[in-house]
Amino acid sequence: MTEAYVVGAGQSPFGSFPDESYRSLFETAFERALDSVDGGFERERIEEAFVGTLGVGGRQLGLSGPAVTEHVGLHGIPTTRVENACSASGFAFRNAVTAVRAGLADVVLAGGYEIMTDTGSDHTKWWLGVSGETEWERLSGTTFAGVYAQMASAHMDEYGTTAEDLSRVAVKNHRNGARNPNAQLGFECTLEDATSAPTVADPLTLYHCCPTTDGASAVLVASEEVAREVTDRPVRVAGMGASSDRVGLFQRGTLTGIPASRRAAERAYDEAGIEPGDVDFAEVHDCFAIAEIVAYEDLGFCERGEGGQLLRDGVTDPDGALPVNTSGGLKSKGHPIGATGTGQIVEAFEQLRGGAHTQVENPRYGLAHNVGGSGGSATVHVFERSAEGSA
Amino acid sequence: MTEAYVVGAGQSPFGSFPDESYRSLFETAFERALDSVDGGFERERIEEAFVGTLGVGGRQLGLSGPAVTEHVGLHGIPTTRVENACSASGFAFRNAVTAVRAGLADVVLAGGYEIMTDTGSDHTKWWLGVSGETEWERLSGTTFAGVYAQMASAHMDEYGTTAEDLSRVAVKNHRNGARNPNAQLGFECTLEDATSAPTVADPLTLYHCCPTTDGASAVLVASEEVAREVTDRPVRVAGMGASSDRVGLFQRGTLTGIPASRRAAERAYDEAGIEPGDVDFAEVHDCFAIAEIVAYEDLGFCERGEGGQLLRDGVTDPDGALPVNTSGGLKSKGHPIGATGTGQIVEAFEQLRGGAHTQVENPRYGLAHNVGGSGGSATVHVFERSAEGSA
Repeated sequence: MTEAYVVGAGQSPFGSFPDESYRSLFETAFERALDSVDGGFERERIEEAFVGTLGVGGRQLGLSGPAVTEHVGLHGIPTTRVENACSASGFAFRNAVTAVRAGLADVVLAGGYEIMTDTGSDHTKWWLGVSGETEWERLSGTTFAGVYAQMASAHMDEYGTTAEDLSRVAVKNHRNGARNPNAQLGFECTLEDATSAPTVADPLTLYHCCPTTDGASAVLVASEEVAREVTDRPVRVAGMGASSDRVGLFQRGTLTGIPASRRAAERAYDEAGIEPGDVDFAEVHDCFAIAEIVAYEDLGFCERGEGGQLLRDGVTDPDGALPVNTSGGLKSKGHPIGATGTGQIVEAFEQLRGGAHTQVENPRYGLAHNVGGSGGSATVHVFERSAEGSA
Repeated sequence: MTEAYVVGAGQSPFGSFPDESYRSLFETAFERALDSVDGGFERERIEEAFVGTLGVGGRQLGLSGPAVTEHVGLHGIPTTRVENACSASGFAFRNAVTAVRAGLADVVLAGGYEIMTDTGSDHTKWWLGVSGETEWERLSGTTFAGVYAQMASAHMDEYGTTAEDLSRVAVKNHRNGARNPNAQLGFECTLEDATSAPTVADPLTLYHCCPTTDGASAVLVASEEVAREVTDRPVRVAGMGASSDRVGLFQRGTLTGIPASRRAAERAYDEAGIEPGDVDFAEVHDCFAIAEIVAYEDLGFCERGEGGQLLRDGVTDPDGALPVNTSGGLKSKGHPIGATGTGQIVEAFEQLRGGAHTQVENPRYGLAHNVGGSGGSATVHVFERSAEGSA
């Protein structure tokens, strides 16, 4: 089995782009991914593609993968569209790595896209709802903010997590996002701003929720042989794990954790042969502030219930022991559903190559964590920097 | 790299089932797949799943894969939902085989489902339209029957294919489907019935079009080691090929062929090390009668333009040299979009194990051919019967 490497990665700006289409945004991400390869990369070498999208707005609900790969000139290759709600491109990436490992292809494209801002606000809410459990969540009126608010309330009740802890996630991620020119909400905020903002779903305020976003991202996965040929600085996919679960939050055994994340992380660490303490930075799925706190715990960065303390201690700040969401995260960079998973991998790639906007000092291992719905699916990938000159 | 084998396969009945849900139909297919393994198969051994669906009707548009794997008790494993229009589960199967070949898992489930009959007829038409190209096909009013009617007109004009040739597809497939208890339209028809039926999109009559269908299918893919353990009669995945293409028919260079099918077939034959003439039977994507004729040509069963002659000569009849669509095909068995690709593989599995409803005599190689939209994607898989007692 060949090892799989990330040799290129890029994303479009995330934001609201009424003059762009899902195709033009995907093209931007794709061209940036090609350009990120040292010396450039010929698209003709790409042999297979996996594209994640929820298809918000219903523009091209069928063949929504081929619809973008054809646009960037890849219309002869097999393209699989993957949908796993907000983890669509985390799974697209997983399948791209698997295709390389199986020897199916030497170079595989993984990416994702979403247009969320011009569907009409009611329509967007409907589309977000479709990733919840249908009968007992969506049709009974539960929104996504509502589901995560239940998790926040339970976490506060059980572990003493506070509203200020939630706000600390926002403050940190906005500070990081303010340095990222691709971020949708690239401005800073204070604890007071975040805590006193209007309530969306109690206890979550506006600043505890990620925005709706247009955007695309693309990652080039290659075999060891190709990676060695095209770059001196490939990023190794050291470990991967994934899991699905019952779609409805109410159907699972806990409100204060996401079992799919925990299972995915265990498998990824096991394959990489590392412990959580070996991780030098992480991009985690902070669709709502509580989700980042729960992620710390599910990923083994701290014990259950201690996520808030990690924030209070500054551990996950850029200069802390384990920086989290240096890109700005879903909170500040934005959350274009299908583009989020591979968007996180863009940041991991740039961190491990030394060119991130909020660069961590000399990292060896980075982690990307992508969740679908309220935990109906999750992927965790561990990346390792290559020693200079070796693939 | 381990070889991949099909060790079990099953489908629900295809038809109109107002009292069933997509979950209950998937469960039926899944249980039948488990039961088809000699001595049964424990679901706990399944480590990964790929589920194809277009999501017609929008019941569970997000996490629509995990929504069915959780229902059959597989909620801890990674499930990827695949959508490639009508080839969704052809691609789900491709990715399941790849996962086994990569060593990611020893047993992988591939399947698909669709509910199409209780969305309201206008609504179903809208959902079918979404697999066409959006701006210039769907929004300008072109239906799927309309797109294939263009192909039929061009084929008749260029090669002298006749309306009776189209009807011969219907007569043959209905005759086969009449023996298949899982078929939706399990009755025979005459050439006169088919040719004189009401026109849907000239030159296609009602009998030249497949129905809208509820149904599900499931296939168990296993490594050589597991296959050897659980059955004496595994079916080897000898070759696979896939391709995507421009989504709109008008964007491609031809109206009389599907280039994605041709590319997929070439790769599948190449991997299997066989020629088209070695194929003993095939399930091909006959969503419209012209599609079966075009498939003969794209798959290399005859020269370009000679598809009609193959029918006139009875070559693709059950007692011909190369029986096609012994299951009844999409035309008579039915076409529940996401369930069709793995549904074809159910037939291939049963043929190669000797238990099909219209059994071909002692076949060695079988082929399954699945198309998305009007040719925006396609998969071809070649299967080989195992020698007795060997995996």
